[in-house]
Amino acid sequence: MQIVKVGLLGLGTVGGGTATVLLDNAEEIARRTGRKIVVDMAATLDPGRTRELGLTQTRVTTNAQEVVSDKACQIVIELIGGYEPARTLVLQAVANGKHIVTANKALIATHGQEIFEAAQKKGVIVAYEAAVAGGIPIIKAIREGLSANRIQWVAGIINGTGNFILTEMRDKGRSFDDALKEAQALGYAEADPAFDVEGTDAAHKLTILAAISFGIPLQFEACYTEGISKVQQEDVAHAEELGYRIKHLGVARRTDNGIEMRVHPTLIPEKRLIANVNGVMNAVLVMAEAAGPTLYYGAGAGAKPTASAVVADIIDVIRKLNMASSLANRIPISGFQGDGVSDIPVLPMAEIETSYYLRMLAADRAGVMADVTAILGESGISIEAMIQKDPADERQAKIIMLTHRVKEQQMNQAIKEIEALGSISGEVTRIRMEPLA
Amino acid sequence: MQIVKVGLLGLGTVGGGTATVLLDNAEEIARRTGRKIVVDMAATLDPGRTRELGLTQTRVTTNAQEVVSDKACQIVIELIGGYEPARTLVLQAVANGKHIVTANKALIATHGQEIFEAAQKKGVIVAYEAAVAGGIPIIKAIREGLSANRIQWVAGIINGTGNFILTEMRDKGRSFDDALKEAQALGYAEADPAFDVEGTDAAHKLTILAAISFGIPLQFEACYTEGISKVQQEDVAHAEELGYRIKHLGVARRTDNGIEMRVHPTLIPEKRLIANVNGVMNAVLVMAEAAGPTLYYGAGAGAKPTASAVVADIIDVIRKLNMASSLANRIPISGFQGDGVSDIPVLPMAEIETSYYLRMLAADRAGVMADVTAILGESGISIEAMIQKDPADERQAKIIMLTHRVKEQQMNQAIKEIEALGSISGEVTRIRMEPLA
Repeated sequence: MQIVKVGLLGLGTVGGGTATVLLDNAEEIARRTGRKIVVDMAATLDPGRTRELGLTQTRVTTNAQEVVSDKACQIVIELIGGYEPARTLVLQAVANGKHIVTANKALIATHGQEIFEAAQKKGVIVAYEAAVAGGIPIIKAIREGLSANRIQWVAGIINGTGNFILTEMRDKGRSFDDALKEAQALGYAEADPAFDVEGTDAAHKLTILAAISFGIPLQFEACYTEGISKVQQEDVAHAEELGYRIKHLGVARRTDNGIEMRVHPTLIPEKRLIANVNGVMNAVLVMAEAAGPTLYYGAGAGAKPTASAVVADIIDVIRKLNMASSLANRIPISGFQGDGVSDIPVLPMAEIETSYYLRMLAADRAGVMADVTAILGESGISIEAMIQKDPADERQAKIIMLTHRVKEQQMNQAIKEIEALGSISGEVTRIRMEPLA
Repeated sequence: MQIVKVGLLGLGTVGGGTATVLLDNAEEIARRTGRKIVVDMAATLDPGRTRELGLTQTRVTTNAQEVVSDKACQIVIELIGGYEPARTLVLQAVANGKHIVTANKALIATHGQEIFEAAQKKGVIVAYEAAVAGGIPIIKAIREGLSANRIQWVAGIINGTGNFILTEMRDKGRSFDDALKEAQALGYAEADPAFDVEGTDAAHKLTILAAISFGIPLQFEACYTEGISKVQQEDVAHAEELGYRIKHLGVARRTDNGIEMRVHPTLIPEKRLIANVNGVMNAVLVMAEAAGPTLYYGAGAGAKPTASAVVADIIDVIRKLNMASSLANRIPISGFQGDGVSDIPVLPMAEIETSYYLRMLAADRAGVMADVTAILGESGISIEAMIQKDPADERQAKIIMLTHRVKEQQMNQAIKEIEALGSISGEVTRIRMEPLA
């Protein structure tokens, strides 16, 4: 059986998982591919890891440079994570003619253009299925499975930690802080959880999904990013009463004016399948012109689910190893040919239209509702539903509204005017809504 | 731009949809592939269809033989459906060195081995994404996306008509007959609905899913097939009370003793995402060793969703057109290399273990329950839950039970003994259950 030698950069959670899957499933992989994949070399700061993992035939080094320049390894698997030294090592490996498999969403979202261009020039493949939604083959589904389609929008629950927290808040009535502590206790969230709960991680993944869905450059800096740390338990409960769930959604949409690319807490109708994706699970809903809606669900993180995607990429690369002459036949790294990439702009948030959930505390006296609805009416904002809650104290009423669609800048202006009313206490809470229909 | 010429067999619903998608999305497809796909020739008994569809540059014939032997067409798209003449035409096209794309589940499930072997010998590709679950790229997900995994089981709602009927029965309290009439009125079911509601269509698809999941030959004749036409409204309601939904599920599972391959009405816990797949939508849940559970959801039928899969296959074939020398690099047609195909047997239904929902009418007098539970106990069947319903008339009580897992042959024997009790009226209704966890 033909042997393919790969070099691993990093033997942490995902690197260890990758080694384990390659060893444990070697027989099944050989049945599928007719090849034996061997981890010939691994770079790790903890050389004992190779023995722990049963990598008995692997050359081990603490110097990652040795892997990227090793003659025997045809494919370099970058599983270090983060921006540097990952970027430098990947670019060196490309320069050395290595094919690349990576799980690094931060790297692809921010340095993807540079890496893809270098790979294109050198004629090597860069595969990054594991960078988005872990074990779900969503990159393959969009680049290949839906290749006949003009994709209209993509909406995803693409951060498991955030989804776990929101699920706990709904199911158990917990506060954000309590749910976050639970996530940390269970090992789902880092000691510094900002990357997850403030949306950076989801924005990295959404940037990649938008690029391969619409054929636009990777533009992480243009992605609007809002976290879930300000989501209140009471809003989760009110959303529920109204038939909605709050999810931390990444939404990328193609409009006539430009591309929407945004990560924020979002109300979605509870009857949508994606509204029922709970705990640490991920799901991506794709609306495509011919296929209609398709949804892809699975584990978005974890050693073995992520390794599943890494190893699938290795197998994909191997299947193309001997066709170096036919770059034209390759699946383009971004899913679109170089000259097929569009420069349609990403829209600023102010230009984006959604419907809204609003919550405010109002003095419980005549004329207040008239003032609020007058402001909304003048801003062209119509109300779809409204509930008024028993006053917290006798002089105040809690008002919850769902609005029809309006541009964000009009809503910003209306909220500013409502907050300036003497009869309204504090800030107006605003959460965007998506029908996902 | 390089032009690729394809020949279409059939311009019915899916053929027309394929032509439409190729024309409407030509620009997006070119952006993705760098090619222009041209329907150079089409066989149809209604030559007026080409004008209707805007296929102005297509040569049209009523003789399908002309397409399979045409020199210009590199790829033949078989969208006639059914066993013959589809089988003969596909084999002829293969013999003529054409690559094949087909949406024909009946053909692949029953004649797939013969076709795959002929294609293998001739070095051509046979692509059949559209044969299972329409617009959902499930063949690609299993053969490529999950290629790192040992797949443990697959469970799918893979017939939209049946799922529509069961959804209507649950949501609107309709009988099977009424729901079927509604499906026919909406155009979801044929005048002769047996293919859908008796499970043959689902069994075709499950046969294909089992083959590519486990690397076993296509063995449609070994698939246990039970329809939904005997599902009673009262069982749908009782399942609901107990926290379950009844779905027409195709289940393929790898066990130490052999492969389970079965299509039947199934109770599944309502909290599973797949239990919430409603109406005509399809979904396939795959349990894989590394990735864990992943689910794929979308439209399982219809002109454009099916065309989405057909055109994706055309694009896949095109990407491999110039690599004819490297058969070893191809994704094997069955997902596994020829020598990787296993001869592990498909288990007879009697050998399969599931838990059960049972419903029976019993005389409402002392000792009856003791008789029933004694029979179950002697057969090694333990009871997980039981509800007794207000008697339909005063002398009879309806008993509903959920059991723990037991081999089908033991359950058959126990049911026979229960039905022989003088205190039990009529037959015991039995529906299998799957936890899908």
